Amino acid sequence: MVDLDFEKQGGLVPAIAQDAKTGEVLMLAYMNKESWELTLQTGIAHYWSRSRNKLWKKGESSGNIQEIIEIRVDCDSDTVLLKINQIGKAACHTGRRSCFYNLVKEGEIVEDGEKVFDPSDVYGKSK
Amino acid sequence: MVDLDFEKQGGLVPAIAQDAKTGEVLMLAYMNKESWELTLQTGIAHYWSRSRNKLWKKGESSGNIQEIIEIRVDCDSDTVLLKINQIGKAACHTGRRSCFYNLVKEGEIVEDGEKVFDPSDVYGKSK
Repeated sequence: MVDLDFEKQGGLVPAIAQDAKTGEVLMLAYMNKESWELTLQTGIAHYWSRSRNKLWKKGESSGNIQEIIEIRVDCDSDTVLLKINQIGKAACHTGRRSCFYNLVKEGEIVEDGEKVFDPSDVYGKSK
Repeated sequence: MVDLDFEKQGGLVPAIAQDAKTGEVLMLAYMNKESWELTLQTGIAHYWSRSRNKLWKKGESSGNIQEIIEIRVDCDSDTVLLKINQIGKAACHTGRRSCFYNLVKEGEIVEDGEKVFDPSDVYGKSK
């Protein structure tokens, strides 16, 4: 098993999910040791949800799971880069392909990410 | 000024630096409010060094500064994506182009990043 430095950030490391084909950065989430090991074992991205405070298999609600194509670890073993195949074409819970749809332009935010799905169809009307 | 959520992580947000031309993810570092504002104002990447506990203009020692081409903010305003032009061709303090030179292969780390410079030439022999 590949060891990561979970100490620096209270048991978590950031993990960048990048589209393996296009290079587009889709999201950043966090992993604890359990989600890291599950990711390695299953070939499917698992994170730790800081808002829900629980293990999070990405796509468990939406079906938009992330198949691992390649995993890289940075020089001081405290960040992970996942090159993935994004099932369902959207990584963001807002229905956009990438979470980074907010472009900074002349000091303001301009949204430029196209919606791939309607979140209310996927997560239910209450969300 | 674009506001970020610095509260979640004790005054810091992670910032991903990605080569604007090739899409290669080069590094992940952290920004506090001051480094975020300096990055916006100067068009040059500034971070917060957690190890040195100080403002860090990337490349201040090595000359390998990062020119900002595009800035994106994620859906909950707690992560930044910088598309950059990496001066000096190497982002990593080990002399490699990317910090993510550790490929996970069959449960082991395999280094596959070519060294662009010798760190002892750039930072001095003591580092």
